[in-house]
Amino acid sequence: MSNDPIILYDIPSKAPGCAWSPNTWKTRYALNFKGLAYKTVWIEYPDIEDLCKKIGAEPTGTRKNGAPYYSLPVIHDPKTGAIVSDSVRIADYLDTTYSDTPRIIPAGTHTLQKAFQVAYDQATDPSVRQYIIPAVAKILRPKSAEHYVRTREESFGMKLVDVVPTGEAHNTVWKQVEEGFGKVDRWMTEGPNNGAPFVMGDSPTFTDFMIAGEMHWFMTGFGEDSDLFTDMMRWHGGRWAKLLENLKKYEGPAEKMPE
Amino acid sequence: MSNDPIILYDIPSKAPGCAWSPNTWKTRYALNFKGLAYKTVWIEYPDIEDLCKKIGAEPTGTRKNGAPYYSLPVIHDPKTGAIVSDSVRIADYLDTTYSDTPRIIPAGTHTLQKAFQVAYDQATDPSVRQYIIPAVAKILRPKSAEHYVRTREESFGMKLVDVVPTGEAHNTVWKQVEEGFGKVDRWMTEGPNNGAPFVMGDSPTFTDFMIAGEMHWFMTGFGEDSDLFTDMMRWHGGRWAKLLENLKKYEGPAEKMPE
Repeated sequence: MSNDPIILYDIPSKAPGCAWSPNTWKTRYALNFKGLAYKTVWIEYPDIEDLCKKIGAEPTGTRKNGAPYYSLPVIHDPKTGAIVSDSVRIADYLDTTYSDTPRIIPAGTHTLQKAFQVAYDQATDPSVRQYIIPAVAKILRPKSAEHYVRTREESFGMKLVDVVPTGEAHNTVWKQVEEGFGKVDRWMTEGPNNGAPFVMGDSPTFTDFMIAGEMHWFMTGFGEDSDLFTDMMRWHGGRWAKLLENLKKYEGPAEKMPE
Repeated sequence: MSNDPIILYDIPSKAPGCAWSPNTWKTRYALNFKGLAYKTVWIEYPDIEDLCKKIGAEPTGTRKNGAPYYSLPVIHDPKTGAIVSDSVRIADYLDTTYSDTPRIIPAGTHTLQKAFQVAYDQATDPSVRQYIIPAVAKILRPKSAEHYVRTREESFGMKLVDVVPTGEAHNTVWKQVEEGFGKVDRWMTEGPNNGAPFVMGDSPTFTDFMIAGEMHWFMTGFGEDSDLFTDMMRWHGGRWAKLLENLKKYEGPAEKMPE
């Protein structure tokens, strides 16, 4: 038992604020939303598996070859000794352990929030990943970048530079990205929560942290002043820009990678 | 203003109980769950558009040629004079108008329930529709069957008899159907609601009525004693059979098509 802050394991970048991963942003938001003290420990991509095995963090999936797959976020809570991986399981752990703080996943909505993430990924991921995966390669530090480029090029089956749509293909695919986010926008506008700042109304929940985490991914990957990110912030009446603004108070202090 | 029961417009079939459509089942469950008096008026497929135009029911979509698309369920509530189409909008209407009855869509969950339906359809629909669309053609009455077969064959671009997977293809596609429902099952089991009878816990909501409505579609389309339906009822620890059982009290009395 200890009163030391919770450790959040995250992947560093060269971007301002260092944090960039949509998955770890979900946990970062959640910790700040609950007002829990935490500190970030930065782990480069090739070191994630060794870290997880060393501290006993469970894998979050299975590789094609059947081997366990380890990923961040992982938290270590010195107060209970718990080591928890996967942003949804971390949210469940924090909601249960710190039951006097606002819930990340309100009672009864766990399955619905899970399904939202599935539907969101299907609507947006196949098109936007052609832009964001190559973009992230450029903001990672050398040790992570080498690992990231190699594994992602294996996954795409081509050089990352060839993944990014250009010319006519860009017009088509970027339109698909906008239409994908347009679907998500419509799930929010077609109903009684239309006009509310968050998916469930006046208070943010896991789904809002997930979407805002994706927006941080685009902001750091494309660059805050890039044409792509500027486009996104204009789409759908500025919905995604407003979401980032509404969640700004839960971003926590800007992080800095130790030299 | 009138105290006459709500009219539920539904599409008849030759199957026992007459009701078969997954979409109208959502509203049928909702009305019974709320304990609201209603009576069914049966409308054959080719008469849906004329009915909607005559009573002023809004279209629920747009055809490829740009024309409005009309579908059931539609309700007419004599108490308020309201005519409402689309099962989600009907649920919203009933929750708002009959606010002293249990909510179909609990506060704040509208967008999440919408996303669940999107994710569910993507997980299950592309595979299972190859079986269920041709099966439904056989249980409709002649007037609807002619319209249904013609429009669905246009949509598939082939005869319905050629849509159904057979031989090796059946083994592959039916496995995909099971895996699709397996995804939905996992959204429910991977979380704190595991073991609860319904998606949100102890009380059913729109999502449960949606899934159970689909199960009625399979039960009437394939036949209650068919191999396909028997398979489905065994899948995932009997989850879908249990759901139907848990919602039996909200099915209402067995319906009968007037001669």
